[in-house]
Amino acid sequence: MIKDKIILGIDPGTTIMGYGIIHLKNNKTELLAMGSIELNKLETHFLKLQKIFERTSYLINEYKPDEVAIEAPFLGKNAQSMLKLGRAQGISIAAALSQNIPVFEYSPRKIKQSITGSGTASKEQVAAMLVSLLKIKNLPKHLDATDGLAVAMCHSFQNNTTSGEKSYTGWKAFIAQNPKRSKS
Amino acid sequence: MIKDKIILGIDPGTTIMGYGIIHLKNNKTELLAMGSIELNKLETHFLKLQKIFERTSYLINEYKPDEVAIEAPFLGKNAQSMLKLGRAQGISIAAALSQNIPVFEYSPRKIKQSITGSGTASKEQVAAMLVSLLKIKNLPKHLDATDGLAVAMCHSFQNNTTSGEKSYTGWKAFIAQNPKRSKS
Repeated sequence: MIKDKIILGIDPGTTIMGYGIIHLKNNKTELLAMGSIELNKLETHFLKLQKIFERTSYLINEYKPDEVAIEAPFLGKNAQSMLKLGRAQGISIAAALSQNIPVFEYSPRKIKQSITGSGTASKEQVAAMLVSLLKIKNLPKHLDATDGLAVAMCHSFQNNTTSGEKSYTGWKAFIAQNPKRSKS
Repeated sequence: MIKDKIILGIDPGTTIMGYGIIHLKNNKTELLAMGSIELNKLETHFLKLQKIFERTSYLINEYKPDEVAIEAPFLGKNAQSMLKLGRAQGISIAAALSQNIPVFEYSPRKIKQSITGSGTASKEQVAAMLVSLLKIKNLPKHLDATDGLAVAMCHSFQNNTTSGEKSYTGWKAFIAQNPKRSKS
């Protein structure tokens, strides 16, 4: 069922951005890379956005993912922090869209559910399951990296490329999927 | 005092995106273009983001602005709408950053203050002042277009390129401006 493809998973945040890259090949899933990008040392919000864009673009150029999946909380309490989070998400989404790579988004609950079977699992439980699934030997410094990896794995568990909770597949894919709607 | 340059002003929204493009030359300001991009007819949030990115990129490629200025409310009440607004802003910012164009942001209050002298001016008052300043003959269909134009004009009124309320000028400019801070 799994096609040969590379998935970049991103957990965009305003203090740390986590990412994981997996390769699905011959029904096996191989870990290509994971890591975290520390944004909290950067002095201004603009430098953080710049770094998110640069690093996401770098990862895309380096690993050439076929699809990008991002973790996206849909709800929050603080309007100001949601604005900042929205910007961070928008920057990651744009980095993928700018290279015509489809973007899929999943809620934190959906991701935890996909990996561990429980939508309320802890970061540690998610990490432990990923260690088992991907035979990871050395856990990364920050669990944000495994969070990013979890998004990629969550996406790989979906049956096809249109099953994300929300997807950003661009005009061409949209028109192909919705021939009657694309009159604009 | 005004250098020869082209400024793209954007009022990013989730229903309508307004823009205005001005050319500062020989101490005169010329209107190059203004308009609005209707997003409310698009069925999904992702199609809106896609369109914001595509149209912003198109405007940048077409008019080759030296600087981009965006209107950015810093405060809001509804967390969910702020997340969406943040994404729209992030997409516009990324479209500029992806082409290494510095981005500056201004609050709605600052923009109104710059154009009319009052931070609480109405859209109509802002539009009327722009008509006078730029000798505009035909007002656009949506005042979102004049809102976008107002951001560009507000930015042109600042004395130099580093005087935006917040600016996104990229690593090179940041390092040049802050030689002691760029140790990372």
